[in-house]
Amino acid sequence: MQTIQSDNYPIFFENSIDELIAFIERGKYSRFFVLTDEHTSVHCLPKLTDKLNTLGNYDLIEINAGEESKNIDFCIGVWKMLIDFEADRKSLLVNLGGGVITDMGGFTASTYKRGIDFVHMPTTLLSQVDASVGGKTGIDVDGIKNIIGTFTQPKAVFIDTAFLDTLPPRQILSGLAEMLKHGLILDAAYWNELKQSDLTKPSTALVHRSVVLKNKVVMEDPTEKNIRKSLNFGHTIGHAIETWALNDKPDSLTHGEAIAIGMICESYLAHKKTGLKAEELEEITATFNRLYPRFGFSRDIYEELYSIMLKDKKNMDGKVNCTLLSAIGKFNIDNICTKEELFEAFDYYLAG
Amino acid sequence: MQTIQSDNYPIFFENSIDELIAFIERGKYSRFFVLTDEHTSVHCLPKLTDKLNTLGNYDLIEINAGEESKNIDFCIGVWKMLIDFEADRKSLLVNLGGGVITDMGGFTASTYKRGIDFVHMPTTLLSQVDASVGGKTGIDVDGIKNIIGTFTQPKAVFIDTAFLDTLPPRQILSGLAEMLKHGLILDAAYWNELKQSDLTKPSTALVHRSVVLKNKVVMEDPTEKNIRKSLNFGHTIGHAIETWALNDKPDSLTHGEAIAIGMICESYLAHKKTGLKAEELEEITATFNRLYPRFGFSRDIYEELYSIMLKDKKNMDGKVNCTLLSAIGKFNIDNICTKEELFEAFDYYLAG
Repeated sequence: MQTIQSDNYPIFFENSIDELIAFIERGKYSRFFVLTDEHTSVHCLPKLTDKLNTLGNYDLIEINAGEESKNIDFCIGVWKMLIDFEADRKSLLVNLGGGVITDMGGFTASTYKRGIDFVHMPTTLLSQVDASVGGKTGIDVDGIKNIIGTFTQPKAVFIDTAFLDTLPPRQILSGLAEMLKHGLILDAAYWNELKQSDLTKPSTALVHRSVVLKNKVVMEDPTEKNIRKSLNFGHTIGHAIETWALNDKPDSLTHGEAIAIGMICESYLAHKKTGLKAEELEEITATFNRLYPRFGFSRDIYEELYSIMLKDKKNMDGKVNCTLLSAIGKFNIDNICTKEELFEAFDYYLAG
Repeated sequence: MQTIQSDNYPIFFENSIDELIAFIERGKYSRFFVLTDEHTSVHCLPKLTDKLNTLGNYDLIEINAGEESKNIDFCIGVWKMLIDFEADRKSLLVNLGGGVITDMGGFTASTYKRGIDFVHMPTTLLSQVDASVGGKTGIDVDGIKNIIGTFTQPKAVFIDTAFLDTLPPRQILSGLAEMLKHGLILDAAYWNELKQSDLTKPSTALVHRSVVLKNKVVMEDPTEKNIRKSLNFGHTIGHAIETWALNDKPDSLTHGEAIAIGMICESYLAHKKTGLKAEELEEITATFNRLYPRFGFSRDIYEELYSIMLKDKKNMDGKVNCTLLSAIGKFNIDNICTKEELFEAFDYYLAG
């Protein structure tokens, strides 16, 4: 599988552990640090340990697993560990884990001493197809996801789909939602192919294709002025539901489950507003309902979801802005949706 | 006085308040926020209020004055206020104050929603000649100055030396130390001119000249790979003493007072290591001792100062790196100084 060239950094798909070791050696770093969580230090790190040990001295920084660790308090904890370890500007941070590790590790590194190098070895399907490309780093403040962050590129990304063997099925499905999104916004053929594949373990070729699609979009529009907004499909509503669940029912929804709901709701809006055909809406709804568990929420939280949406980074001037579809495989950006339209979309999901 | 063009942004010296108002109008921002501290909201903000009011709705964010406010906790407070005010990505942050406000405001803005625009209106001599140019933002964690930050340029800087009239003499002297440094590292004629000027209120022309000097260095080497390191003269030792004082004797030293001590000590090292003549060392020592109060510290804290220096951003591989002088007006970068040499330099200052 070919190495993908992103914005000044490579994304490796083959011999990724060896490529990581070679990268660290070439970089002549004064020190390096490996950021893991309690899961990846058990399931993933051992696959690297022997080779890392050949490089000499390094330090491990382990945080708790889960979105809670993306809170600013944990970020301060990592900064303090780097200070205590006397990490200098020629240090490297290796982020070994899912999106929490890559987002938070990226933010920590991009601000420590005004920026040290970092690389990602994403270990979940979600982080391989989503967080590995695009240069977004982020942490949560006040329960608002990614409200604080930077645009900073890693120096390299090392993808090894063998790590996916250790993932529970629910985590595979979480990443799959982003892959399905890539098809819906950019490539109808890919959407059709995915639907017909064995989705319990997507092939390396399918992962590679998602990264190619996302990378193309990000390279064309790094600062999200236009086409990069396509990637927000399903995320305006999905993020709000995810944020609500994070505060009220921790661990009840994965990111993918939340944006699957978001994509159903926003496909309904697309049918109403941007020309998505009724049969396409039905096909999308049926596909997500087949793959993902239904999630119950009551009309009582509609106002709360709306107020979370108003705080979304993507909005301007107090209006809720959605990326919708004009057809399967074709996105349509900058659609202002009213409160009434959004509530109708929630109704559509709940009626489903 | 001519507008200075820095890295993609202008630094205004004339009609600066009007220029600020015109800038905000042109920018078509959705909202703007003015960050002040308890001093600048009393002494400086009133000079702008009438004109700001013509622009319509804006919000004030006020923090306590002093270095303590650069702590991460205050930074989180500002982030939360921006969240509560529902500041979107097209918002502008106007930093009205000294270096604490410009460093912290710059960091807050550069990370809020992955970066919103910000401008500086520096109100102290120190922030006018130092923080206004160079794109460094920063906050303190664990009592370590600027350990966390980004390189992000403001969209414009508005310098009005009339603000200096409200400053206590000690604050003028604090900024003056950076101006004297600019002479020592880059321009012997400027050093001589400064020494002979009325230093209780430096003229706009002298302020302008310092900004021109600093800007030239920063433009040539934005990421501090080589000549920008010249600006660190006096700061390796000065920062350590400042950090120690901040933790143990708050408010006992201004930044300028601390780096004046640092410049005496590092001139001693320059005499020992990089060819600074004995009479030049004497001239530098006498000048700083004439302008700045002597600061007593005992040999008991040498080890602590050394351990603070080891955590300095400028160091690599656990060695203390100083920028020294080879003559007045000529810097010399990347000098490794041993513990013994540094302790000797402290002795030199204390014997003075």
